[in-house]
Amino acid sequence: MFKKVLVANRGEVATRVIRACKELGIQTVAIYSEADVNSLHVKKADEAYLIHGDPIKAYLNYYKIVDIAKRAGAQAIHPGYGFLSERADFAEYARKHGIEFIGPSVEHLKVFGSKIEAKKLMKELGVPVAEGSDEPVSDLEEAKRIAREIGYPVMIKAAHGGGGRGLRVARSEGELISQFQIAVKEAEASFGKGEVFIEKFIENPRHIEIQIVADKHGNVVHLGERDCSLQRRHQKVLEIAPSPVLTRRQREKLGKICVEAARKIGYYGVGTWEFLMDKYGNFYFMEVNPRLQVEHTVTEEVTGIDIVQEQIRIAAGMGLSFSQKSVQINGFAIQFRVNAEDPKRDFVPVPGTITAYYSPGGIGVRIDGVVYKGYTIPPYYDSMVAKLIVRGRSWDEVIRRSRRALGEFVIRGVPTTIPFFKKILNDPEFVKGQFDTSFIDRKIKDFTFIEETDPEVLALAISAAIAAHHGL
Amino acid sequence: MFKKVLVANRGEVATRVIRACKELGIQTVAIYSEADVNSLHVKKADEAYLIHGDPIKAYLNYYKIVDIAKRAGAQAIHPGYGFLSERADFAEYARKHGIEFIGPSVEHLKVFGSKIEAKKLMKELGVPVAEGSDEPVSDLEEAKRIAREIGYPVMIKAAHGGGGRGLRVARSEGELISQFQIAVKEAEASFGKGEVFIEKFIENPRHIEIQIVADKHGNVVHLGERDCSLQRRHQKVLEIAPSPVLTRRQREKLGKICVEAARKIGYYGVGTWEFLMDKYGNFYFMEVNPRLQVEHTVTEEVTGIDIVQEQIRIAAGMGLSFSQKSVQINGFAIQFRVNAEDPKRDFVPVPGTITAYYSPGGIGVRIDGVVYKGYTIPPYYDSMVAKLIVRGRSWDEVIRRSRRALGEFVIRGVPTTIPFFKKILNDPEFVKGQFDTSFIDRKIKDFTFIEETDPEVLALAISAAIAAHHGL
Repeated sequence: MFKKVLVANRGEVATRVIRACKELGIQTVAIYSEADVNSLHVKKADEAYLIHGDPIKAYLNYYKIVDIAKRAGAQAIHPGYGFLSERADFAEYARKHGIEFIGPSVEHLKVFGSKIEAKKLMKELGVPVAEGSDEPVSDLEEAKRIAREIGYPVMIKAAHGGGGRGLRVARSEGELISQFQIAVKEAEASFGKGEVFIEKFIENPRHIEIQIVADKHGNVVHLGERDCSLQRRHQKVLEIAPSPVLTRRQREKLGKICVEAARKIGYYGVGTWEFLMDKYGNFYFMEVNPRLQVEHTVTEEVTGIDIVQEQIRIAAGMGLSFSQKSVQINGFAIQFRVNAEDPKRDFVPVPGTITAYYSPGGIGVRIDGVVYKGYTIPPYYDSMVAKLIVRGRSWDEVIRRSRRALGEFVIRGVPTTIPFFKKILNDPEFVKGQFDTSFIDRKIKDFTFIEETDPEVLALAISAAIAAHHGL
Repeated sequence: MFKKVLVANRGEVATRVIRACKELGIQTVAIYSEADVNSLHVKKADEAYLIHGDPIKAYLNYYKIVDIAKRAGAQAIHPGYGFLSERADFAEYARKHGIEFIGPSVEHLKVFGSKIEAKKLMKELGVPVAEGSDEPVSDLEEAKRIAREIGYPVMIKAAHGGGGRGLRVARSEGELISQFQIAVKEAEASFGKGEVFIEKFIENPRHIEIQIVADKHGNVVHLGERDCSLQRRHQKVLEIAPSPVLTRRQREKLGKICVEAARKIGYYGVGTWEFLMDKYGNFYFMEVNPRLQVEHTVTEEVTGIDIVQEQIRIAAGMGLSFSQKSVQINGFAIQFRVNAEDPKRDFVPVPGTITAYYSPGGIGVRIDGVVYKGYTIPPYYDSMVAKLIVRGRSWDEVIRRSRRALGEFVIRGVPTTIPFFKKILNDPEFVKGQFDTSFIDRKIKDFTFIEETDPEVLALAISAAIAAHHGL
């Protein structure tokens, strides 16, 4: 096992990795930008090194990062998610310098970096995919031909995109003509490569993803699925494990397909196979995320397995600490991404200083927090304040508990997405488990966010009124 | 189901009950003393009523409490633990006034209020008990006769005692003669009744207790055991579920015995059957606690069952939400009672003001906290600051995770028991699961508590030294 690991990330995920290392008895090395001097990950690590200059480039400067790792005596680097986590060139560079990159092989980082390559490979391996172009398309006439073949609506998708950027839907040839060049230009601007592909568009699907964990000795296990259908503009806002609509049979079948695919290509590390599910229960492969995901926590809550520890163990060459047979899915878990954003102003990020912070607790509540009273959220990064993860024995219980936990969460100084989550938890369709990727964009116009009376103030007012009435 | 419940308690357990009520959609009414104006339970309840006068008697004034319940429109009272939770007279009074007491029948509160009665009853029902006097003994000659019969060492035990008070051990007739009158006088002084009984003394036992949950329709289920062997002067300091030494067979057998006993007497509510286990694996019944216990949380963590919600449902006449067959014990959990006490000064309680508070988080960590930055712990009650509950898939994992979580816990302004727990977690015998009720009293003299360097300060110093060395 490694003695010392450098965490090439910041904030919440850096803290997550440091916790896993501490539990494994591994020393931790943090890096931080000038904007992150007060970040919790700096305080929690055993050592921390400042990287001067641009606050974002600090976490992308991989020559410097590998240099720090070597000098500090770290044997491995954990990239977290975002930043360098999917960069094949970084993995290659680190390994060439004798530092293990905690992640899959360079070859797999490369193939999964291209959605087209990934889809081609998965199709060959028997994973269900949506009909569409097998090769990148850069010519409108070819796009029209393919669209006619598979039938409208179709999707124009940046081959190197992600997070919903560079996605366009065409419901007719007219729309394809008007959208195609825009999509190519967008892809060029955002990802440096204008390649797109054409794919059958799945109407109002659910987003279902399978968590794969594989060691370097050929053992591959899936930990069931997550339902990430709740998205705002293609960005996940809350995630659920397991999906409230998947049957055990569907879970096992889809899990097995992914396990087989991962095994056949010799995949190792953790990875997520993402699918769309249409209303008939058909699955369509989207992409593989060859890294830890933000929403890994809900899988941890329902299986009890520490995915980050497992990931580190795998990188160190150890075998999986569990078998497929021993994996059990117990109850349900929901993760809420509590962001410093203003739901009343179209979720604009509002960095600022936290003037009060009191996180919920008690049964079934997990907090992966990154802020504290007096902390100033820097404007350079994502606006996450905390991940609130709630678990319960049943779908009903996890919803009731989530309402309770969100009600306890006190964050002052910046607006947060908490009022938005309260609306979702009170929506009758959500409560029944009836939602797809269009849910939030459809509902959001009906959500009104008014200033709530502080519950504490309200309680005192009620008590005073009743006491006065009864002469207590 | 009840619409409104009054919580006749304070601090941590009041907060615990309020959370359960909120998840069940029940309105909550808090009561508080003049010393508890800033207590979290007051803030978290929907309504809160001040009871003037003595800060302890406020929570024992049951005429006043029932009066508030009636006027506020509550249908039931949850007594928490301590205070009125085992008082048959209170339960009777409340029910007579149309307010349900959330707990077992008055008859069972009465019988389990007397250790002698409880033991007699359990012996009749086939529960294993230690040999000893079936009736209270007040005469030294009779005590000598019984002791000779069962053999030394024997224990002299106050019939109405608890928490280790009024307990004496005699290893010979000489010791019996010298201890007997002292024990009787102590019992009289502490509990108002001088009755004692004589019992075979079990050398260095483990404390094992079975959690029973029973509804009013005859359904009785056990949730496995807790191992509460770690005690300091007969007070539990940390609790574990399940016991690291019990076999599945032992668990099932002991659980079944308790379920049968509870069923035969028509017990309803939650309750704990406490046993001593000797080194040969024999169990000896000690007492039944007919109420929620401080350590119920570890059972919740390994079963997923919310014991407080179940308790409220039972009082409302609902059936159990689970069957014996559906109860699974997953992994291990440890509860740490983080108290404002000074381990360097023989654990003297040190009430004071919290100047910094940052609780641990992440996977497997539950906090049932009662303080916040700026809160002043009143001197009138127990010194609990928070319960830290940690769970893991294995005994090894829960220990590693507990170390990590305790290392993250920042409480400033008062000394706490955290350094004491760190010592226990690093003791090789504890790590191997080898401990009994004598463990802490045996080890404590070897635990030295020196001022630790703040880990944050240490990390910065290490980084600076390495950076200077390498010219980073």
